[in-house]
Amino acid sequence: MINQQYPSRLLEKAVSEFSKLPGVGRKTALRLVLHLLREEPGQTDSFAAALSDLRHNVKHCSVCHNISDTDVCPICANPHRDEALVCVVENIQDVLAIENTQQYNGLYHVLGGVISPMDGIGPNDIEIDSLVERVQAHDEIEEVILALSSTMEGDTTNFYISRKLAPLGVKVSVIARGISVGNELEYTDEVTLGRSIVNRTPFNT
Amino acid sequence: MINQQYPSRLLEKAVSEFSKLPGVGRKTALRLVLHLLREEPGQTDSFAAALSDLRHNVKHCSVCHNISDTDVCPICANPHRDEALVCVVENIQDVLAIENTQQYNGLYHVLGGVISPMDGIGPNDIEIDSLVERVQAHDEIEEVILALSSTMEGDTTNFYISRKLAPLGVKVSVIARGISVGNELEYTDEVTLGRSIVNRTPFNT
Repeated sequence: MINQQYPSRLLEKAVSEFSKLPGVGRKTALRLVLHLLREEPGQTDSFAAALSDLRHNVKHCSVCHNISDTDVCPICANPHRDEALVCVVENIQDVLAIENTQQYNGLYHVLGGVISPMDGIGPNDIEIDSLVERVQAHDEIEEVILALSSTMEGDTTNFYISRKLAPLGVKVSVIARGISVGNELEYTDEVTLGRSIVNRTPFNT
Repeated sequence: MINQQYPSRLLEKAVSEFSKLPGVGRKTALRLVLHLLREEPGQTDSFAAALSDLRHNVKHCSVCHNISDTDVCPICANPHRDEALVCVVENIQDVLAIENTQQYNGLYHVLGGVISPMDGIGPNDIEIDSLVERVQAHDEIEEVILALSSTMEGDTTNFYISRKLAPLGVKVSVIARGISVGNELEYTDEVTLGRSIVNRTPFNT
């Protein structure tokens, strides 16, 4: 499609701002902007205010580096959570994904990324040192669970963290990898299937 | 997925505002919000400002009812456009679509909708009276081209407008309907194919 000439600069500006968002093209941006124009002005105002408010006032938890409104996030501040467990994740979406399983009652440590030399992200660009300091400072931490994506970068980061934590005598585990629940063996990729045989677990009835 | 409990009310508010937009679910909204958090605060500010600015300052052209920054839109104000032609469309996206073809040099009239009893939209809810007044007031208008969607509502609106314009002696035409350029006959739906045979045109070499 050739570049569109909008009849309004305000419209042009709003559409181009919207289309800076990932996965939003100019056609989608125009549709969203025209939707806002059809709604009450108050909706656009509260939308704009919510974004600015978040951007300027959001904090990161001083303990786990998760997004938070307060200095310590609600998960870290919750006395009913198990302080002996710290689950290391890449970002806040992963925290939400694990919380949704309702299978985990420990704390988190959000790295804010994984080691990725290709993207210029080294160990000092993510929250690894603060994890080591946290484990050193808190004797109640018994186990660190590495829950990173099963990629080259995730594996590298797992390896780096486990080496850093080794001298501290804390137990380090990694989340199980194998065939997905509900998946048929036939359609599972070879690497996953191979690993799931190597890492087989005792059958519990 | 069960309802997510975000660790931040600011985040919760921003995500729920984003997910009010059509086609944006909570997962997409979270992804977009986290994208904004990774970027400079200035980007969020200019995004929020562009939306508020548009919502509060945008006007509609007093002639054609298209979106405009000024009282008369750039298309209506352009002396090089053919004042004898007025193309009736449903909304601004249709204006942009026709402009993109670069096949039309006349003016527009944006109805802001089509007659749709099911949605409670009658002839007085859209810009039909203003079209009739415009044709009455401007003797230079020779032809009104109806370019509405080929739906029941579009056809109803075409019929209504043509009846309203009949006493004024202006020529009323409708955009051609037939098989799409590049489409194979075999896969064209029966109604379109039937119409394209009934409305066949002389073969020009």
